[in-house]
Amino acid sequence: MRTVLLTGFEPFGGERVNPSWQAVSLLGERQPLSGVDIRVAVLPCAFDTSLDALRAAVTEHSPELVICTGQAGGRHAVTPERVAVNLDDARIPDNAGSQPVDVPVVEGGPAAYFTSLPVKASVAAMRAAGVPAAVSYTAGTFVCNHVFYGLMHLLATELPGVRGGFVHVPYTPEQLADAPSMSVATIAEGLAALVRTCLDTVEDLSVPAGTLH
Amino acid sequence: MRTVLLTGFEPFGGERVNPSWQAVSLLGERQPLSGVDIRVAVLPCAFDTSLDALRAAVTEHSPELVICTGQAGGRHAVTPERVAVNLDDARIPDNAGSQPVDVPVVEGGPAAYFTSLPVKASVAAMRAAGVPAAVSYTAGTFVCNHVFYGLMHLLATELPGVRGGFVHVPYTPEQLADAPSMSVATIAEGLAALVRTCLDTVEDLSVPAGTLH
Amino acid sequence: MRTVLLTGFEPFGGERVNPSWQAVSLLGERQPLSGVDIRVAVLPCAFDTSLDALRAAVTEHSPELVICTGQAGGRHAVTPERVAVNLDDARIPDNAGSQPVDVPVVEGGPAAYFTSLPVKASVAAMRAAGVPAAVSYTAGTFVCNHVFYGLMHLLATELPGVRGGFVHVPYTPEQLADAPSMSVATIAEGLAALVRTCLDTVEDLSVPAGTLH
Amino acid sequence: MRTVLLTGFEPFGGERVNPSWQAVSLLGERQPLSGVDIRVAVLPCAFDTSLDALRAAVTEHSPELVICTGQAGGRHAVTPERVAVNLDDARIPDNAGSQPVDVPVVEGGPAAYFTSLPVKASVAAMRAAGVPAAVSYTAGTFVCNHVFYGLMHLLATELPGVRGGFVHVPYTPEQLADAPSMSVATIAEGLAALVRTCLDTVEDLSVPAGTLH
Repeated sequence: MRTVLLTGFEPFGGERVNPSWQAVSLLGERQPLSGVDIRVAVLPCAFDTSLDALRAAVTEHSPELVICTGQAGGRHAVTPERVAVNLDDARIPDNAGSQPVDVPVVEGGPAAYFTSLPVKASVAAMRAAGVPAAVSYTAGTFVCNHVFYGLMHLLATELPGVRGGFVHVPYTPEQLADAPSMSVATIAEGLAALVRTCLDTVEDLSVPAGTLH
Repeated sequence: MRTVLLTGFEPFGGERVNPSWQAVSLLGERQPLSGVDIRVAVLPCAFDTSLDALRAAVTEHSPELVICTGQAGGRHAVTPERVAVNLDDARIPDNAGSQPVDVPVVEGGPAAYFTSLPVKASVAAMRAAGVPAAVSYTAGTFVCNHVFYGLMHLLATELPGVRGGFVHVPYTPEQLADAPSMSVATIAEGLAALVRTCLDTVEDLSVPAGTLH
Repeated sequence: MRTVLLTGFEPFGGERVNPSWQAVSLLGERQPLSGVDIRVAVLPCAFDTSLDALRAAVTEHSPELVICTGQAGGRHAVTPERVAVNLDDARIPDNAGSQPVDVPVVEGGPAAYFTSLPVKASVAAMRAAGVPAAVSYTAGTFVCNHVFYGLMHLLATELPGVRGGFVHVPYTPEQLADAPSMSVATIAEGLAALVRTCLDTVEDLSVPAGTLH
Repeated sequence: MRTVLLTGFEPFGGERVNPSWQAVSLLGERQPLSGVDIRVAVLPCAFDTSLDALRAAVTEHSPELVICTGQAGGRHAVTPERVAVNLDDARIPDNAGSQPVDVPVVEGGPAAYFTSLPVKASVAAMRAAGVPAAVSYTAGTFVCNHVFYGLMHLLATELPGVRGGFVHVPYTPEQLADAPSMSVATIAEGLAALVRTCLDTVEDLSVPAGTLH
């Protein structure tokens, strides 16, 4: 059995659910991938405590692959993130009432980390499974990017053999009448295809997936 | 058995598939609704011949409900249309090379027809099934609106007991890397929920579903 | 002198300003068009009273051309509307607390009216003046469409020699940090080009300006 | 006199103009800022030669401030970029036919550079001037990001006293009928306000301007 850690976030910004955790917890219950033990953890949507919770989960489960997920309200696809930046700039307070502006995630850390996930192969696999997917080049500057950067820093400095990355997911149809959305089942199907691809892929596809701006 | 006619369009605008026909033909094969006989027809994406093909299909199948569907590239939800306007204004040539500008669909017809489908109840049912859905207030001015208007005119003038309307569906993930999309299976699931709702609903929900502009 | 009536709306939806009235009142002060007397009126954003205020302004000023304007938050261009529909469906309460759902603007009126403005020539003139502009095929189902439909009904039934239509305008940069926007000065410049075009144009351009959906 | 270098790009992607160079060359002609000598240069839209051209312009003009600009088709605001990433991933070939995929801008360079422009103060100044503006957190992975990263690397490694950054600008209304756009005059007005702000501002505003994702 290969062990993978998936994390999702608790609800934030006035929402009652967070599709990232809904999909991740569904995968934890269903265990849809043969030969893969999916461990799951929910992270607080708070700058101060999210990385401690992530570290605790990594320590507890000793995964070979860590995929953190979060809600990206307004996006219409499952979007693996390529770049984490060393910057917190919170448009709204987090769930603990904290709103850092223009401070680094890790004092003295590099300006950015690139994901170690094969994001292009993952996107191809999700699309082949009928799940809308695309590579993203910004994870924002809120708690999602904070956790993404913190994860990559943890792996780079303490766990060099573990791969990891971050995936943003859309709203669900239950959340907002007018926004792009995707059912929890479809999100989970996409994440399962992504996990399978990450485990099976040594080198990412060399196909263009960039953006013009 | 209750008979429903679903139509989809052939591909247009350089696309190799049309998700409206993919989803509709899937429903014709699967027949997912008990007590309902789903008949299907593909319409040419051409101003001159689409309404003849629609009339022929209606005559052949004698449905109690007619739902025409078409591709709305760029939309992120299954969108039942509320209003058909008596106007052709083609941004691009249709599949027969015709590009009418500022001519009515039906000379002397009313400026618009409203759908006779319970669009609000249908949207609620699709969302409850996990399918992103929303009411739309413009079907454009290309062949989709042409067929929608032509259908409503046919029903109003010749078949007053038959209900009908039009539903736009998104691209599929196979079509375009960056656009909002939805799998054929999800689109078909949404259309099935919509058909069931239309058959079961006498009066539409009285809830706000309008747009501010 | 040729007399034109321009109307804008008071703020609504929690906004402190309404760019439609800001731009229209600026044009009333500046009077930028030689040989044209621009009269202006602000309309309440309320279903019950807006059409009475419009009728009063038309009676007072006896214009040969009436252009009503309103805010379309989220649009990125000045958008002359082509179609008014006989439907009120209010997503939010208006400024008087009224929220009609699925009622006609005018009981027994036609399903829709087309504008009598040369919208394509107007869009071309605005774009030539450097103002982002596009034809729109839905004015929504809130007070803007209500006033648009009411105006066209008034002209059709009582003032056949007067031309009229509706134009939606974007937010201004002051209103919302993340939405598309346009300065009041640019909006006013666009409306001036539109008024000049409407006065000078007998027959609209015959160029494609439709939408695929 | 204080010397500022502004660069724009030549047209690419089938366009006949590039609004970045149109606006920058207009500022070079008009010289709207008292006490400021605006020098301008046009850069080729090519990975191989753009940074040589940039270096040559910096050497020739010895500016205290360098602001590179580029077209971001589809954006609706003037957007100062905050982060340059060390990654070329070209969705389309550049003007020289080159299409690098997943290669660094500078072999061995840091993963990213942050701008040294006061982007928040600049956005505030542009908005106060009526010009739609917003901070951006991704400059893409095409030639714009390539030049942005190359500029920041040049300044960091060879010219530590010079400040610099990158600004994306929208299409103009002449380019594409349906996309968000802004006139060259408005873009130039925005860039002038940005240059003035960059010269006058020692420390950027400490206000939230981040994104949730």
